[in-house]
Amino acid sequence: MELKTKFIGLTTGIPVILLTQKNADKLGITVGGRAEVKKTSQKDKGLSVIVDISNNLATSKEVGVSKETKNRLNLKKGQILDVNLAEPPNSLILIKKKLNKKELSEKDLDEIIEDVVDNSLSGPEIALFISAMYSRGMTLKETVYLIKSILESGNELKFRNKFVVDKHCIGGIPGNRTTPIVVSICAAAGLLMPKNSSRAITSAAGTADVIETIAKIEFTLSEIKKIVKRTNACMVWGGALGIVPADSKIIKIEKSLKLDPEAQLLASIMSKKLASDSNFILIDIPYGRTAKVDRKKALHLKRKFERLGKYFHKKMKVVLTRANEPIGNGIGPELELRDVINVLKQIENYPQDLEQKSIFLAGNLLEMVGKVSVGEGMSMAKNILSSGEAYKKFKQIIEAQKGKIRGIKLAKHKKSFIVKRKRKIKSFDNQKINALARIAGCPSYKSAGLYIYKHVGETLDKGDKILTIYSESKTRLKHAIDYYKKAKPIKFK
Amino acid sequence: MELKTKFIGLTTGIPVILLTQKNADKLGITVGGRAEVKKTSQKDKGLSVIVDISNNLATSKEVGVSKETKNRLNLKKGQILDVNLAEPPNSLILIKKKLNKKELSEKDLDEIIEDVVDNSLSGPEIALFISAMYSRGMTLKETVYLIKSILESGNELKFRNKFVVDKHCIGGIPGNRTTPIVVSICAAAGLLMPKNSSRAITSAAGTADVIETIAKIEFTLSEIKKIVKRTNACMVWGGALGIVPADSKIIKIEKSLKLDPEAQLLASIMSKKLASDSNFILIDIPYGRTAKVDRKKALHLKRKFERLGKYFHKKMKVVLTRANEPIGNGIGPELELRDVINVLKQIENYPQDLEQKSIFLAGNLLEMVGKVSVGEGMSMAKNILSSGEAYKKFKQIIEAQKGKIRGIKLAKHKKSFIVKRKRKIKSFDNQKINALARIAGCPSYKSAGLYIYKHVGETLDKGDKILTIYSESKTRLKHAIDYYKKAKPIKFK
Repeated sequence: MELKTKFIGLTTGIPVILLTQKNADKLGITVGGRAEVKKTSQKDKGLSVIVDISNNLATSKEVGVSKETKNRLNLKKGQILDVNLAEPPNSLILIKKKLNKKELSEKDLDEIIEDVVDNSLSGPEIALFISAMYSRGMTLKETVYLIKSILESGNELKFRNKFVVDKHCIGGIPGNRTTPIVVSICAAAGLLMPKNSSRAITSAAGTADVIETIAKIEFTLSEIKKIVKRTNACMVWGGALGIVPADSKIIKIEKSLKLDPEAQLLASIMSKKLASDSNFILIDIPYGRTAKVDRKKALHLKRKFERLGKYFHKKMKVVLTRANEPIGNGIGPELELRDVINVLKQIENYPQDLEQKSIFLAGNLLEMVGKVSVGEGMSMAKNILSSGEAYKKFKQIIEAQKGKIRGIKLAKHKKSFIVKRKRKIKSFDNQKINALARIAGCPSYKSAGLYIYKHVGETLDKGDKILTIYSESKTRLKHAIDYYKKAKPIKFK
Repeated sequence: MELKTKFIGLTTGIPVILLTQKNADKLGITVGGRAEVKKTSQKDKGLSVIVDISNNLATSKEVGVSKETKNRLNLKKGQILDVNLAEPPNSLILIKKKLNKKELSEKDLDEIIEDVVDNSLSGPEIALFISAMYSRGMTLKETVYLIKSILESGNELKFRNKFVVDKHCIGGIPGNRTTPIVVSICAAAGLLMPKNSSRAITSAAGTADVIETIAKIEFTLSEIKKIVKRTNACMVWGGALGIVPADSKIIKIEKSLKLDPEAQLLASIMSKKLASDSNFILIDIPYGRTAKVDRKKALHLKRKFERLGKYFHKKMKVVLTRANEPIGNGIGPELELRDVINVLKQIENYPQDLEQKSIFLAGNLLEMVGKVSVGEGMSMAKNILSSGEAYKKFKQIIEAQKGKIRGIKLAKHKKSFIVKRKRKIKSFDNQKINALARIAGCPSYKSAGLYIYKHVGETLDKGDKILTIYSESKTRLKHAIDYYKKAKPIKFK
């Protein structure tokens, strides 16, 4: 279909064209699908672009082009473009190979991942890949190839240091903000810990959301190197780095589908750790009835991680941690930051469980690299905390990330629930607690969240507070209160 | 995330918002994904909208809204909107149920199809549904429910006539343009045949593309009723009718994925036939080495269709037709139209094979409704053709569709291939012939296409033409010539 080029002043990051609904129908292209565009003089393969639909910004005789399309094809206003349904990329055939129960080769996975990165695969096509991994499973060999492909398609951080450590938690437990504490302890002990973290998607907060309350979290690779050189560590948002762009793209679709095939989970974690040049990797798998996985699945993942660690010649340790309730007292970016700072400053009444888990993880890392003998790691970690060195290091990292430690800001509106008689806490539902915090406004509203006063097995006296909900808006607070009453995320004996 | 409303003058057919890449990242939404938007005063569930990314049309403090979003929420310029990641619809959980090998209930499929129609499911989510049907298969019960759901979500044509007939061909054979001939014969015999057809997506032309060369093919349901009342028939584009909108949406994604799960194939055909009130349905399944299906798969489909016909109390006949070469001589909208008119006008040297297949299909329909006794259908059909009644009827239908019969228009550029010595044709590759016609410009360029001079088993003398390629552009013609030489779609003995 020959159409006249129209510039629409759209910058989209990737080449996009706009067609009318009718023209798209004629070409058999759906919104978000791919077209091949070329100048009429062009002989070779055209440019693969994403199609958006608009009946206003382009007429039936026009094709609207984004700046990226304009630049890639070096277009002039009014120039005639030949627009066609894009032939599906070869990687789509490979995805169907997997769907038809055949094993993918290293070359196959390279091709798929390349096409993910350069936008040759559309959203529905990436969804098909995710679905194929999910419904057919992936062998360990395929998982290794997937990790390699993801790594090759991105950038690596290089530190030329033997003691680069990293930790990762598969998530799902509200308030489980150990990373800033573990990073501060390890960096204070002289280890290199260039930590890149994710934002929350389905939980109340990710480490990136928490650190963002008081510091910058988006840096270039060379800026990160400077921060790490100065402080031994960083706590930045992985999404801004572009170290594993394939993974970021696949994960976005996965999250929207709420589908998390095991191979991709393993590849996602491993590729990020390998791309940040870590030699010692500690993986934390919280398990439990309302955690992401149960004990059986946790053990299965542990074995997989250990085999992958061996394959990539990394010192790897996987710890299973029982997780039947939130960790710490605050849930939500600002509230979790307060818990973290209270532990680091060892302020009276800081959350013991958060400290305990943090020194357990930091201790493991210290032992793994041989800073102390086995069995001594936790007490070394505790010493670094008690001496104030960890807090000093935390402050230094936050300042290197152009931030400043300050008191927390809580949301305007709040509501506390109290018990009407003496009661003992029986259980928390982690998933419902996460949902409650999100309804209250987390993670978009950093000052929103929950505060819990006691943990499982502890007793509340008549009139004691169970939980406080914080929210920036009255409506959200009301929704949260309704959800709390309906979902009953906390059970009593 | 609270953002200021900005009108962007975009009409998209469905509610859309524009966000900057950064804001979309923060919300965890990918292009084409869904957001929930509501006014800050709004208490209930917000509106589910599709997200587009633009760093120009909206700033980081703004949300660009399409006219549909504006109208649905009754928005004012500058009004604050609360934008969030949309909670996935419940139907996504049902799709995962299927992916996890559980059977879907009638209610489940209703919910999925409703969400497809009202855009609650995104492209990747529909892809997941298609993939689940493909990888897990669907029982006959599930297929029946799927058909019912698709029907209920659309509009039905009602004719209050016992003799409404329809035919459908699963496609894949170049030049196989029997529909206009069959429709003309049946309508001339007094049957009602309100035919809605598809445009070509992967082939050189669909019936809709062919009729569009000389008549309008997009009508409203009430216009169609008038045309059928006047002429007993119509030949319109099904996509414009909105009789099975769910099917149209699923098919668009299917085509882009090149994935055609059996249940959806059955449901797509059955729902369209049932929605157009047909009592007698003839299904043509061409099979062969380079057809869409082989004989085994064709027999399997036949049984499935027959069981569905029984379930829906329709008189249904499925014929398997061997298809090892194109039918007729022309391939491409204008060229196929010429074949059709030549058969209808019984002009000397009209394509015998096209007539033969058309009277076979029309004869079957005449027998099915009891217009003639079994065995007499084909000669009745041939009589209607010979007498000129079929052509008269065709002209009447074309005129009712605001068209006019005229001589064909062929593309400017052409190239013929000749044999250098006497040769006998061994075989045609249907798929390669389709690909060749598309490279030449079909179906977008209606005057482009192929003309073949002989069929399998026939002999070409030295210097005889094998094939002529027609194209509107020299470049396309050159590409087609290169492809012809490389792919060798015609083999000789």
